[in-house]
Amino acid sequence: MGFTDLTKQMLPAVENTLKDSVNQQIPERYEGVHEMMVYHLGWENNGNESTVQGKRIRPLMVLLSTALFQPDWKVALPAAAAVELLHNFSLIHDDIEDHSELRRGRKTLWRIWGVPQAINTGDAMFTLSQVSLLNLANFVSAQITLESMQLFNKTCIELTGGQYLDMSFETQDTISTESYFHMISGKTAALLSASAELGAIISDTKPNNRSALRNFGSSLGLAFQIWDDWLGIWGDESQTGKSASSDLLNGKKTLPVLFALSQKKDFFRLVNQKGFILEESQIPQMMDCLQNDGAKVYTEQLAREYTSIAIQSIESLSDVDTDVKTSYLEMTNQLLKRKN
Amino acid sequence: MGFTDLTKQMLPAVENTLKDSVNQQIPERYEGVHEMMVYHLGWENNGNESTVQGKRIRPLMVLLSTALFQPDWKVALPAAAAVELLHNFSLIHDDIEDHSELRRGRKTLWRIWGVPQAINTGDAMFTLSQVSLLNLANFVSAQITLESMQLFNKTCIELTGGQYLDMSFETQDTISTESYFHMISGKTAALLSASAELGAIISDTKPNNRSALRNFGSSLGLAFQIWDDWLGIWGDESQTGKSASSDLLNGKKTLPVLFALSQKKDFFRLVNQKGFILEESQIPQMMDCLQNDGAKVYTEQLAREYTSIAIQSIESLSDVDTDVKTSYLEMTNQLLKRKN
Repeated sequence: MGFTDLTKQMLPAVENTLKDSVNQQIPERYEGVHEMMVYHLGWENNGNESTVQGKRIRPLMVLLSTALFQPDWKVALPAAAAVELLHNFSLIHDDIEDHSELRRGRKTLWRIWGVPQAINTGDAMFTLSQVSLLNLANFVSAQITLESMQLFNKTCIELTGGQYLDMSFETQDTISTESYFHMISGKTAALLSASAELGAIISDTKPNNRSALRNFGSSLGLAFQIWDDWLGIWGDESQTGKSASSDLLNGKKTLPVLFALSQKKDFFRLVNQKGFILEESQIPQMMDCLQNDGAKVYTEQLAREYTSIAIQSIESLSDVDTDVKTSYLEMTNQLLKRKN
Repeated sequence: MGFTDLTKQMLPAVENTLKDSVNQQIPERYEGVHEMMVYHLGWENNGNESTVQGKRIRPLMVLLSTALFQPDWKVALPAAAAVELLHNFSLIHDDIEDHSELRRGRKTLWRIWGVPQAINTGDAMFTLSQVSLLNLANFVSAQITLESMQLFNKTCIELTGGQYLDMSFETQDTISTESYFHMISGKTAALLSASAELGAIISDTKPNNRSALRNFGSSLGLAFQIWDDWLGIWGDESQTGKSASSDLLNGKKTLPVLFALSQKKDFFRLVNQKGFILEESQIPQMMDCLQNDGAKVYTEQLAREYTSIAIQSIESLSDVDTDVKTSYLEMTNQLLKRKN
């Protein structure tokens, strides 16, 4: 993904704050917890950093939102580190819950240290995210720190709620598109929304700007997830790195599938006839049915709508630094036009 | 356990605050999360409440500490609920990590809903504990709320650190008594210490009283855990409900065992000769060796020392309500003289 000069300054600052948090808050007597965190966050070997560390999108959003209103975006670093630690805590636990053996090309934490230690290290990282956010009080008022903590923890309820729905879907026959939106709102959109909004809280900006950033993050999250579902079926395998058929073969309940099922037409009949889990040779027929039922157009249209709301939200901001606004728009475009 | 009139008023208030927290903070779309929490907290059936709900010691400590300095202990209810939610979150995850199938006579959460949902509901309860503590801001200043949050999250680092050590012990041959104290300080004493100290923070009392309460909680926790280890070997089976031999047969690394091993005398020789896990018929010989090596006397002496520090800490408080002090001492005595 392309970065502006500003985001190039922000990324190492985020990394240093994350490292300070992990190195200073975990006492030496608990060195194994420290070791597991260092591994998960991608610091244990010096090569390949950008692949194993993730893109650090959420902390960038906190900092860009702050920089819109004030040049000293560094005051928001504790919050930037907090959202990244929270995101990584949820990945550690999700990997256990989904029985995923690989993350960013390496073995997941539980695959190396076992489920019990991985659960516990996830809990410790969740705690670190709270500790990091509390450090905001060194730079902003106690009141603003508390408001940030309130939004942050409301977001954690949404994250766990979204994950609960996602896991529940596996054992349910019928899932409404409404339930699907509840799930992705909790699991994906809530933290992106909070990341964007935190910068507004920290800068103590006017309510209009704050709600615009909240809507921006939320729409970005929905567009991102819907686009991800689209790529999982119609994406270019050479660019997404995963076979389109895998989502369909695994019976994953993505938006195009749920929409097509709700139409009770070609795709619904095919699935009812053959059972939901098909053979690879039947994938082309499934894709045809999805397209005939309008699922492809529906998904593209929704992704476009949420992308457009996200961009309008940024455009609606008033009294902001225009260079930062451009950086933010560029990040958004990169994220929503990604091919993987 | 015996209760004074004061603690009898406090217990239903704690229960109501806990119920409000669970009922109000979990949105209806995540009803399964709500259902699991209600089950774990012991509210799903009306009978047998005191057995399935636990003793609510930690919230009582928060409220008693507050009541020492001000009659309106109700301002501390959000903190009281927070420590109980935190404790229960840690029980949900510990049960998964230790593969425990029963808790308070009922199936554990993961045994009913599976490991993935149980991990996630634990995470949601951890979040609820933070949300509950943030509600303090409705009754005390933002500064005091933040101080409480800082202590609370420092305590969570200790809790996860202690659990990390406890799990690490299972695969280690040699464990120093120093490591053992690190483990029980994190796993048991830290939250009892924080519970006692939170009341002092909330009441904004003088530093001497605050550190006395911190030491009280910490010593109470150490005495409690050491006494628990003693009961696991020399306790009266008809009163503790568990066979003394089980701790020894399972090779559990309790304080008497670690002390005896460090002496490299009779017990050490017996274990090296026969391997650590013995047959039931050899338990009497093991108990003899432990006693000969001085492990019984050592453990009793330490439990007495920490009990005495705990009581002295309460006695050292100045300008406090003497009736509340008596309630606190009574609770301490009940807890440390328990037979189960």
